[in-house]
Amino acid sequence: MSSDAWTLLRSTERGVRARGLRAAAAALRDDAQQLIAIAAAETNLSAARLGGEIERTASQAELFADLIEEGSHLDAAIDHEAPGAPELRRMRVPIGPIAVFAAGNFPFAFGVFGGDTVSALAAGCPVVVKTHPDLPGTSRATHLVIRDALESNGFPVGALRIVTERDAGRALVEDPSVAGVGFTGSVAGGRALFDFAAARETPIPVFAEMSSTNPTVVAPEAAETDVAGLSEELASATTASAGQLCTKPGLIFVPESATALIDAVSERIAEVVPQALLSPGITDRYEHRLDDWRRAGVQALVGGRSTAQGQTATLGITSLGELTGTLEEEVFGPATLLVTYASLDEVTGTLLALGGQLTTTVRATGRDLDAIDELLDAAASTSGRVIVNGMPTGVRVAWATTHGGPYPASTNGSSTSVGASAIDRWMRPVSWQSTPDRFLPDELREHPRSRVPRRIDGVWERADA
Amino acid sequence: MSSDAWTLLRSTERGVRARGLRAAAAALRDDAQQLIAIAAAETNLSAARLGGEIERTASQAELFADLIEEGSHLDAAIDHEAPGAPELRRMRVPIGPIAVFAAGNFPFAFGVFGGDTVSALAAGCPVVVKTHPDLPGTSRATHLVIRDALESNGFPVGALRIVTERDAGRALVEDPSVAGVGFTGSVAGGRALFDFAAARETPIPVFAEMSSTNPTVVAPEAAETDVAGLSEELASATTASAGQLCTKPGLIFVPESATALIDAVSERIAEVVPQALLSPGITDRYEHRLDDWRRAGVQALVGGRSTAQGQTATLGITSLGELTGTLEEEVFGPATLLVTYASLDEVTGTLLALGGQLTTTVRATGRDLDAIDELLDAAASTSGRVIVNGMPTGVRVAWATTHGGPYPASTNGSSTSVGASAIDRWMRPVSWQSTPDRFLPDELREHPRSRVPRRIDGVWERADA
Repeated sequence: MSSDAWTLLRSTERGVRARGLRAAAAALRDDAQQLIAIAAAETNLSAARLGGEIERTASQAELFADLIEEGSHLDAAIDHEAPGAPELRRMRVPIGPIAVFAAGNFPFAFGVFGGDTVSALAAGCPVVVKTHPDLPGTSRATHLVIRDALESNGFPVGALRIVTERDAGRALVEDPSVAGVGFTGSVAGGRALFDFAAARETPIPVFAEMSSTNPTVVAPEAAETDVAGLSEELASATTASAGQLCTKPGLIFVPESATALIDAVSERIAEVVPQALLSPGITDRYEHRLDDWRRAGVQALVGGRSTAQGQTATLGITSLGELTGTLEEEVFGPATLLVTYASLDEVTGTLLALGGQLTTTVRATGRDLDAIDELLDAAASTSGRVIVNGMPTGVRVAWATTHGGPYPASTNGSSTSVGASAIDRWMRPVSWQSTPDRFLPDELREHPRSRVPRRIDGVWERADA
Repeated sequence: MSSDAWTLLRSTERGVRARGLRAAAAALRDDAQQLIAIAAAETNLSAARLGGEIERTASQAELFADLIEEGSHLDAAIDHEAPGAPELRRMRVPIGPIAVFAAGNFPFAFGVFGGDTVSALAAGCPVVVKTHPDLPGTSRATHLVIRDALESNGFPVGALRIVTERDAGRALVEDPSVAGVGFTGSVAGGRALFDFAAARETPIPVFAEMSSTNPTVVAPEAAETDVAGLSEELASATTASAGQLCTKPGLIFVPESATALIDAVSERIAEVVPQALLSPGITDRYEHRLDDWRRAGVQALVGGRSTAQGQTATLGITSLGELTGTLEEEVFGPATLLVTYASLDEVTGTLLALGGQLTTTVRATGRDLDAIDELLDAAASTSGRVIVNGMPTGVRVAWATTHGGPYPASTNGSSTSVGASAIDRWMRPVSWQSTPDRFLPDELREHPRSRVPRRIDGVWERADA
C-alpha cells in the first residue's frame, strides 16, 4: 500500500506539510455544518458536541503544523569531528506508512483525521485509516474534505486513504509495507492488533490506547467539604458523553464515613437524563458488564435502566476489600463504582495493584494535603496523568500532555496519543557520519536554510539563537 | 526481583545517581589491571583491546552522568493554565526494573556495566544482568567492583544484580516485575526474547541489537582512486576483532570492472594473521555459515582456514544478481563478501530490499558524488547510521549517535543502544495536572532548586537561561 505516497511524502519539506495541515484544518471548519449533519445522523451525539469536536480536531492539526515548522520533533544533534572521533549528525525521520484504527466515541477527534492520523502525516508518514463501522458516512465525508485539502496543498496523492471493510484490520497490520499502527478502542481489539504485529516476520510497533478505570480518590476532608460542588462534578464527569469517554472516572474511592457525599452523588446521578450509547453492540456489552457487577455482589445506589431515550446512569457501591476481578476493569458506558475505604494507605496499595491507567485523580483539601504524598507517588507510578483537584475528563491538547500509560491503558507506556509528543511515535533516528553537507537533510547542514532547535557538541541551541 | 531497589532507586535525586556513576567509572579505571587479567584469561582479546574497552566503558558512564545532571532526558514541559485549559506539567520517569543480556564480543562495553546497564541505571531503573556464559569470571569481578562503587555512593542495595544460570533468560523476561529488556546478540536470541516479552499478560519492550551486514558501497571512481589505501581500510575493518564487531562490513559492493581493487583487497586479507573466535560454539556456527556460502556457489578469493592460532579471514565474491537467501545474512566472524555490480542504480535497489541495517557506508569521490543521491537516500531509509568515506567500525559514544536501525538490525528502530539517547528507552512520560508545587518532582516546580531544560508554554528554556 501507499508506496508511491511514502516515497513522495517523506521527501516533502516540513513547511509544505505544515501548510497542508493548516489547509485541512481550514477545510474542516469550512465544511463543519455538512460534516456535523452527517455525524449527527450516524451517532447519538449532539450537534454542539460534534461542533466542539471539529474545532478541537482543526486546532490539533494546527498544533502539529506549529510543531513541525519549529522542528523540535526532529531531535537534531551535531557532534563535530574531534580527535579520534568522526563527525556525527542525527535527526529523526518518518518510519513509513501507518495504519490507524479510528474510534467510535469521537467521530472527528479520533476519526479519519484524528490525533493518530494528523501526528503521522505531520511526521511524514502516509496513513491508511480503518474507519469505524458505525461511522460510514462521517468517515467518507471527512476523508473527501481532508484528502482534497491535503492534495491541493502539497501532500502527494494517496497520503491519506481509508479502508471500510469490517474485516480489513488484520490484513492491514500484516501488510509488509505498514510500519506502525495507531489504535483507540477496547483491550481485546488493541491486544489482537498488538499480537498480529508482534508475530510478523518484521515486527512493527502498535500504539493502542485501550482501557482505564481512571481511579479517583476523594480524601477524607475533601469528602466533607463542599459536598454539593463535588457531587455535581463527579456526576457530570461520570455521565458526560454517556460515560463513554476514555477518561471517565470509573472507580471513585470515598471514605466509609462519607455518607453525605455518597447520598449527594447518588441524587445527582439519578437526575441524569437517559442517553443513547454509541451502538447496539456497545449497549449489549454494557449490559453484560452490569450483570457482572450484580454477580459480584455490587449494591446499586442508582440502577441503570434502558429507556426509549437510552440508558440511565448506574452508580454501584462496594468496599475496597471486595474490589477484585471484573470489578477492576473498565465499563464503557455511564456506570461508576464507588469504593469505600477505611484509610488512604489501603487506597495506595490498591492503586499499585490495579494496573496501568490513563489517569489517576486525587481530591484533597486542608489536612488531607499532609497525607497524600504516597498516594500521589503511587498514582504517578501507575498512570500517564495525575490530576489534583480536577477531573480527568477533558484532555488538553498541548505540549505537556500525556494520554497513555502502562498496560493495559496502552500497549506502549512510553508514548502519548494526544499532544505534541504524539509525533514521536512515527519517527526513528538516523545518524549521518562524515557526510558532505550537500547530501544531508537541510536541518543538519552546518548553515541550514531553515533553522530548528539542535544540540551542537552537547549544548542545545534554539532556532532563534 | 529488585522491588525494594526499584522503590528506592526511582526516588534518588539525579545528582546522587550521577555521583554513583562517576564513582563506578573511577573504580573501573582503578581496578583495570585486575579486570583485564581476568578477561584476557577468558577470551582471545588482547590486553590492549580490553584496556581500551574499559576506558570506553568508564567514559560512557561519565557521559550518562553528564546527561542526567543536565536533565534534558526528562523532556520537561510546562503548559500554564489558560482559559478553559488546566495546567499540565510533564516529565519522564523511569519505567521499572530492567533485564540486560550481556554480549560476548565486548566483555566490558557490552557486559555487566555496558551501555544497556548504565543507561538504565542513569534513568533510575534497577538492573539485573544475565551474564554471558563465556565470561563468568569477568562478569563476577566487574559486578563486585561496580556494585561496591554504586552502593558506597548513594545507589540502593540491589540496584545492580547479576544472574549467571545459562537458562535464566526466559524466566527473567517473564518475571512480572521486569519492565523492559536490553539485549545484544543474535537474531535468534533477540527474537526469542522479543516473542516471550510480547506474549506476557503485560507485554514489555525489548530493545535487542541483533544483526547487520553493514553494506559498504564503493562507487566507480572511488574504486579506481587510492586502491592501496582503500584496500587497507577494507581489510582492516572486515577483520578487526576477528570480524566479530556488529558493524563489520559484511557485504562490500564493488564495480565489476574494479579488478585492481578486488586483487588488492584479496592480498591484504590473505596477509591477516589468524585470530581465535570468541568460543568453540561461535567457531562452529561460523564454519557452518561458510558452508552455506559454498553451497550458494560463492567463489572464495581468500579461503578461510582453521589453524592452531585461530581462523584466517575469508573473502568471497559473488555478483549482485546472485545475492539472495542466506548470503544476505550476517556472518559473525572474519568473512566478507564482495558483490560486483554493473550500475549504482542496481545497488540502490538491493539496499532497499536487504532489510534493516545498523550502518550503510558509501565510498565516493570526484564524479561519483554526482550519482549517489539515491543511494544515500536508500541508505538512510534502511539504516540507523549512514557513513560517507569512513568505515562503519568504531562507534562514537556521543550525543548524535544512533546504534540501531530497522528490523532485524534491532527489534526497535526508534531507539539507539549507544549514545546519550539510549536513556530514552527506559523512561516514560507522566503529566501532572493542576498539582500543587509541593507534590511535584523538583524539576517541574515553578522555581526548581535544580534547573533542567524545559519547554514552557511551547518555548524551550535552557537550564542556564
